[in-house]
Amino acid sequence: MKPIHVGLCGVGTVGGGTATVLKRNCEEIARRAGRPIVIRAAANRDLERARALVGADVELYDDALQIARHPQIDIVVELIGGTTIAKEVVLTAIEQGKHVVTANKKLIAEYGNEIFARAQEKGVMVAFEAAVAGGVPIIKALREGLTANKIEWVAGIINGTSNFILTEMRDKGAAFADVLAEAQRLGYAEADPTFDIEGHDAAHKLTIMSAIAFGIPVQFDKAYLEGISTLQAADIKYAQELGYRIKLLGVTRRRAEGIELRVAPTLIPAKRLIANVDGVMNAVLVKGDAVGATLYYGPGAGAEPTASSVIADLVDITRLATADPEHRVPHLAFQPSALADLPILPISEVETCYYLRLNVLDQTGVLADVTRILADQDISVDAMLQRPSDGSGDDGRDDVVIITHLAVEKRVDAALARIEALPAINGKVVKLRLEHLNG
Amino acid sequence: MKPIHVGLCGVGTVGGGTATVLKRNCEEIARRAGRPIVIRAAANRDLERARALVGADVELYDDALQIARHPQIDIVVELIGGTTIAKEVVLTAIEQGKHVVTANKKLIAEYGNEIFARAQEKGVMVAFEAAVAGGVPIIKALREGLTANKIEWVAGIINGTSNFILTEMRDKGAAFADVLAEAQRLGYAEADPTFDIEGHDAAHKLTIMSAIAFGIPVQFDKAYLEGISTLQAADIKYAQELGYRIKLLGVTRRRAEGIELRVAPTLIPAKRLIANVDGVMNAVLVKGDAVGATLYYGPGAGAEPTASSVIADLVDITRLATADPEHRVPHLAFQPSALADLPILPISEVETCYYLRLNVLDQTGVLADVTRILADQDISVDAMLQRPSDGSGDDGRDDVVIITHLAVEKRVDAALARIEALPAINGKVVKLRLEHLNG
Repeated sequence: MKPIHVGLCGVGTVGGGTATVLKRNCEEIARRAGRPIVIRAAANRDLERARALVGADVELYDDALQIARHPQIDIVVELIGGTTIAKEVVLTAIEQGKHVVTANKKLIAEYGNEIFARAQEKGVMVAFEAAVAGGVPIIKALREGLTANKIEWVAGIINGTSNFILTEMRDKGAAFADVLAEAQRLGYAEADPTFDIEGHDAAHKLTIMSAIAFGIPVQFDKAYLEGISTLQAADIKYAQELGYRIKLLGVTRRRAEGIELRVAPTLIPAKRLIANVDGVMNAVLVKGDAVGATLYYGPGAGAEPTASSVIADLVDITRLATADPEHRVPHLAFQPSALADLPILPISEVETCYYLRLNVLDQTGVLADVTRILADQDISVDAMLQRPSDGSGDDGRDDVVIITHLAVEKRVDAALARIEALPAINGKVVKLRLEHLNG
Repeated sequence: MKPIHVGLCGVGTVGGGTATVLKRNCEEIARRAGRPIVIRAAANRDLERARALVGADVELYDDALQIARHPQIDIVVELIGGTTIAKEVVLTAIEQGKHVVTANKKLIAEYGNEIFARAQEKGVMVAFEAAVAGGVPIIKALREGLTANKIEWVAGIINGTSNFILTEMRDKGAAFADVLAEAQRLGYAEADPTFDIEGHDAAHKLTIMSAIAFGIPVQFDKAYLEGISTLQAADIKYAQELGYRIKLLGVTRRRAEGIELRVAPTLIPAKRLIANVDGVMNAVLVKGDAVGATLYYGPGAGAEPTASSVIADLVDITRLATADPEHRVPHLAFQPSALADLPILPISEVETCYYLRLNVLDQTGVLADVTRILADQDISVDAMLQRPSDGSGDDGRDDVVIITHLAVEKRVDAALARIEALPAINGKVVKLRLEHLNG
């Protein structure tokens, strides 16, 4: 049968992986897709490098737009990254009536609405399984596997770098800075790790999952994000004593008033399966009203895991390429005309449980003051832990850790302002969110 | 838009759940599917019960074949169970040009080849996501999410009853019979639990996953199965001491010579995520050559979890119902003309690691004899544990537990025959398989 011709824009790690896997498993893939899927052309700034990765029989260009306009290309794979050239390439390919596969989470989270609208007009597909959780087919699960459900929430460990750092901090009791340096040495963290450790990368992925889960447009600019760089070893230790682990967790939850969309270091019960997802691995837990909780776990990055998702999209598109657009799965799971306009809630309106660590002068009455202030704001206490803050207690200061029941963030912040003003309270209160993730 | 009309054959637990969820989430589901999905007719022997579950506006029949032949029904949902009436209903619906959704693992594992061939001829779809792992969209993951990969193996905890029993045996150190009685009291085990605890149910599910993973016909009759009813508390305890847990594991693996297809109580490293899947939950771990290991976890049974998968299939079919058959995902993931003829290997040819427990008279030289016999069969020892078999050692007998490296089953059996003939060996050797499940 006539092969599907793919144009590869960007031949780096993932592009190289895609070329390798498409070649190695060409027979297996054709047996599934019904026809061969072949890279016909590729674009890369470094042509020599590209040649080494894609082989001798592929046309090479140094300008990705030539791929987007190439008359013999059926599907354009965008692996350039960023949102300037990548966006131009994707929109050009769509204009030319070509289907697009991209691994670019930033592009989809920030410009997805525009891109999908153009694709809809032109009757082409834009697929992005590789944009979230690497090789884990979580977009497919959310968009097609769980279509019976009203999704209640999605919670994910979706940044491998941060999860590696948190795992090491917990296992070795080490400080953030030391573990970051180790992660950089191992190649798990970039020289400038900001994008990963401050939650941007996770928030891009979460934004995409949120849109698909709830049938809303992508709205990255409304996501709340908090990273792990200020997380202290003491909190990881106390969390563990209380039966929790701290993960950089993306949480998006549907409430009557709107959608919560937030990435932050979060306590989760140690007994949950997802709490045991360690190192660079990713996992996404989805709560649907019919199915309950299902979990999807696997490698969140890497050349071949990401290529696995890119190629799954190529096979999907190959199967549907000549079908009428009505037969396709909508980009954001819901029909474009049926998206909801539920607002994204500001972080102050988020409702969750909280971990609070107070450094207190060991004097009578202070805990009574603290609990009274919490009660004034309708915040009830689930668990409490008191420990000498320097390990000996000689300085007369204690760490008091409080786990709250469900509370609204702005009420917690109001209580903390009053608590921090108490004379017996030393410095700022550490506030972390806590999710029980009940199935 | 014109609704899709569904005919429900069998209104029991899952049928009732399907009706409930379709009604509760009708708006959400229509927003995804592009048109409403409505139960128009249902069949059940007990009409009164059916009426209570499906509501007043559904046509009721006491004969499922009337649904299969109903001119206004687009998709027939078969939830009758068994392989007599169910098979007739499915084949009749196909003959009538209707699509079929079924949760019937036995029907697909035993008669899938025939059913898919007829569906292919008639250009209709037969979907069966609910047949494996309840609400977990594992068929979709294997068939569509991992299409880039040469699948190397699939390992699953896919029988909730057995997993509940094994979890309780481990947690409470209880005997099989006591825990089974408790499971029956809680409704997790049937009055006649054979089908679950002897591995039949898991083998049906594994057979289906094996076919989709490797592109081979379903061949349930060649599956090897071993249940948990003879499993002893001592082995669960020793496994734990050595860092393993025992699960009723379905394993299907591609080897050069053929496919392994087996369900048996199996040791897996306690540190693996899948080893921590407890109670009635299901999980499937899939190893692909590109993606590595990915895991899919969730409820393996129950009214609404199973309904979740039934309805996901209904949405998939609704999206594709009027498309040409060429655009559909093949029933067994691979194009029907591209199935492989790799044989299913007999259990004697299986290659894995083994857990062996010998009851030995505590006398000099016996371990030397045992290890020599193992070495004669090319079986090398990975770990060994020796414990007084009655806890005190007063009877002069020890339990010796041996973990082997990779070995071929027939060689292990040959070695065990010789070991059991040694005068110092008391009774039969306990042999369990062990899988490292390396990602």
